[in-house]
Amino acid sequence: MRELPKTDCNNLLSSMELMSKHIHGVANELEVDNIKKMLADLLNANCIFVMGAGRSGLVAKAFAMRLMHLGFSVYVVGESTTPAVKDNDVVVAISGSGETRSISDLGKITKEIGATLITVTSNRESTLGKLSNTIALIPGRTKEDAGGYLERHMRGEYSHLTPLGTSFEITTLVFLDAIIAELISITGASEDDLKSRHTILE
Amino acid sequence: MRELPKTDCNNLLSSMELMSKHIHGVANELEVDNIKKMLADLLNANCIFVMGAGRSGLVAKAFAMRLMHLGFSVYVVGESTTPAVKDNDVVVAISGSGETRSISDLGKITKEIGATLITVTSNRESTLGKLSNTIALIPGRTKEDAGGYLERHMRGEYSHLTPLGTSFEITTLVFLDAIIAELISITGASEDDLKSRHTILE
Amino acid sequence: MRELPKTDCNNLLSSMELMSKHIHGVANELEVDNIKKMLADLLNANCIFVMGAGRSGLVAKAFAMRLMHLGFSVYVVGESTTPAVKDNDVVVAISGSGETRSISDLGKITKEIGATLITVTSNRESTLGKLSNTIALIPGRTKEDAGGYLERHMRGEYSHLTPLGTSFEITTLVFLDAIIAELISITGASEDDLKSRHTILE
Amino acid sequence: MRELPKTDCNNLLSSMELMSKHIHGVANELEVDNIKKMLADLLNANCIFVMGAGRSGLVAKAFAMRLMHLGFSVYVVGESTTPAVKDNDVVVAISGSGETRSISDLGKITKEIGATLITVTSNRESTLGKLSNTIALIPGRTKEDAGGYLERHMRGEYSHLTPLGTSFEITTLVFLDAIIAELISITGASEDDLKSRHTILE
Repeated sequence: MRELPKTDCNNLLSSMELMSKHIHGVANELEVDNIKKMLADLLNANCIFVMGAGRSGLVAKAFAMRLMHLGFSVYVVGESTTPAVKDNDVVVAISGSGETRSISDLGKITKEIGATLITVTSNRESTLGKLSNTIALIPGRTKEDAGGYLERHMRGEYSHLTPLGTSFEITTLVFLDAIIAELISITGASEDDLKSRHTILE
Repeated sequence: MRELPKTDCNNLLSSMELMSKHIHGVANELEVDNIKKMLADLLNANCIFVMGAGRSGLVAKAFAMRLMHLGFSVYVVGESTTPAVKDNDVVVAISGSGETRSISDLGKITKEIGATLITVTSNRESTLGKLSNTIALIPGRTKEDAGGYLERHMRGEYSHLTPLGTSFEITTLVFLDAIIAELISITGASEDDLKSRHTILE
Repeated sequence: MRELPKTDCNNLLSSMELMSKHIHGVANELEVDNIKKMLADLLNANCIFVMGAGRSGLVAKAFAMRLMHLGFSVYVVGESTTPAVKDNDVVVAISGSGETRSISDLGKITKEIGATLITVTSNRESTLGKLSNTIALIPGRTKEDAGGYLERHMRGEYSHLTPLGTSFEITTLVFLDAIIAELISITGASEDDLKSRHTILE
Repeated sequence: MRELPKTDCNNLLSSMELMSKHIHGVANELEVDNIKKMLADLLNANCIFVMGAGRSGLVAKAFAMRLMHLGFSVYVVGESTTPAVKDNDVVVAISGSGETRSISDLGKITKEIGATLITVTSNRESTLGKLSNTIALIPGRTKEDAGGYLERHMRGEYSHLTPLGTSFEITTLVFLDAIIAELISITGASEDDLKSRHTILE
């Protein structure tokens, strides 16, 4: 019989509460005019391409799957059957720092082709931010985190609760799934429409 | 100049608020004793393997990356250099329904080998649930959703705000990142330790 | 200064010669009528899906890339934006033994949907072989290997030169690239047509 | 009943014959001293990392799988659990032109870290070629192709038989599997040793 770790799981529960508060905080600080621009870009795209490195790349893939379920022509940069980007296409880059080298290199090429570049980032003044036609800004530490829950409960240090890019990656996934909710409303798609495109070979 | 869609982004904001509440609700309903068993399984594993289909598979990969950053020997089922599972290994399956065919087939093989099977699921009585040594139960609709935010704001229908498995997938990502927070606390790892293992070739 | 291994690289050179002879042997034993049926299936497909496990899955992806370059609507089973298979689609399965469990399960689902199943295999009488509408048979040991090069040079044992499924995987890649050559000829595509679809974001 | 395409499959058979001859030609022109250096690099590596874009990336993955079967600590750049490269590691880059931007960028970082860079390429004087500690040169058009089979059978134009990088990609896969054959001989591994590490969860 293995011994259980001596923990009351307080860090686990605090991490989840922190993310819950953070998502609420980000929702309240979103720049709605830019989000509308992003929605227009997606709705008018010939094809949509998504890209990101590491965990941001996984978030990009999760977004692409739902866009496919909604009936968009969508590709993940780096997957096998992804074709060449054309000038009437839209490329969505995901990078918290906006400085991931490989992604900002691809952002430059995107702009040279004449395609539309949307960046989801916490850093408007970054390399990718400055290149972009449209920025969806996902604030890092928000007022909600800073003034509220964390001060009362964590007394300072809490990067161990959402290490490295965790907070950005989760919030971006929630945000992009909320973009899907908005697109469902705009296009009038039903959950059955989505299901009919969901892969059966899995 | 492209016309902006006629929307005030209420579905987008409601979707984010709903997820924020849902994460809070799930945190309050977690079965802490099972989570401790899961932590013990992970800490005592020779190697850890993770698996999931579709978006649950992406969540599995995001978890695996962080386990690698923490110094665990961890592999994603289906990636190129993933070796054979042995009986002193742990396999983490992610499946909301617990019935995803390919994953439950691999769960059976895991048990035949004699390895430990942990399943993260909303469905304790599913095929995968019944096979598992340890279950991390991620409740579907929680009291928090049901009695609170949703009733007041959405008046009934809101599956369009988190279609298909969205709610499970996001909450599971938050939960597994909270498992990472707990493992950081238990092992005493610093964010610098994590950074030192983060890939530079991206 | 690292010491060089004491080898004259004879195994390396023999392995390459063996594969060269084997490809020649397989080309001479192909069942041309079945290949024509496979070409007709591909040319008449609404969408083409490819699948395989392990190294056969990599060969499937390499084939899918070239089909995309040729302008076919093609998807890899398991990638992010792969939609549901419909009854006027074609699924290409790659499995040397024809018995890979996950792939034969997906083959059954393919047939239930009413789509056309092509299997590239060395084993006509396998589970996948029996399910298939069209079989492209890639012979295992061929007369060319058996009577020729190997007997004279290797004196028996040579599975160490092409271990596990190596011989099938390489020959299948060469065969599927030859299918591409045939499709280029039939469709009149130029190398520039292919280049114009080759991803620029890599 | 679908009509069969009007073809005698001559392009298909010629493409396979061409590759068979080309592999034979490359085997005869390999630089054995550099191959021995590559073998020494691999045998002395702490960990091995492989990388390539597009179909070269698939060939890299196929090589990585076999190195894992042989018991090497090996990772694919870009997969989920690939850790940071250290100075006593070896990175194998695959690029026919030696100029693939993303891969040569990663090659530069590899050298800055102080790790050993091996490049498999047709172009010794390329960016990657010049950066590398060890080059495995896979000749493009070889004497065997040029003087032999092609002149007699194809009368000039035959890029449609092996379009884009096809010839390099196939020959590199055969070459790297021959490296595996040589490593099997040097380390004394049996096919059963390889099988014991082959994934069961597929």
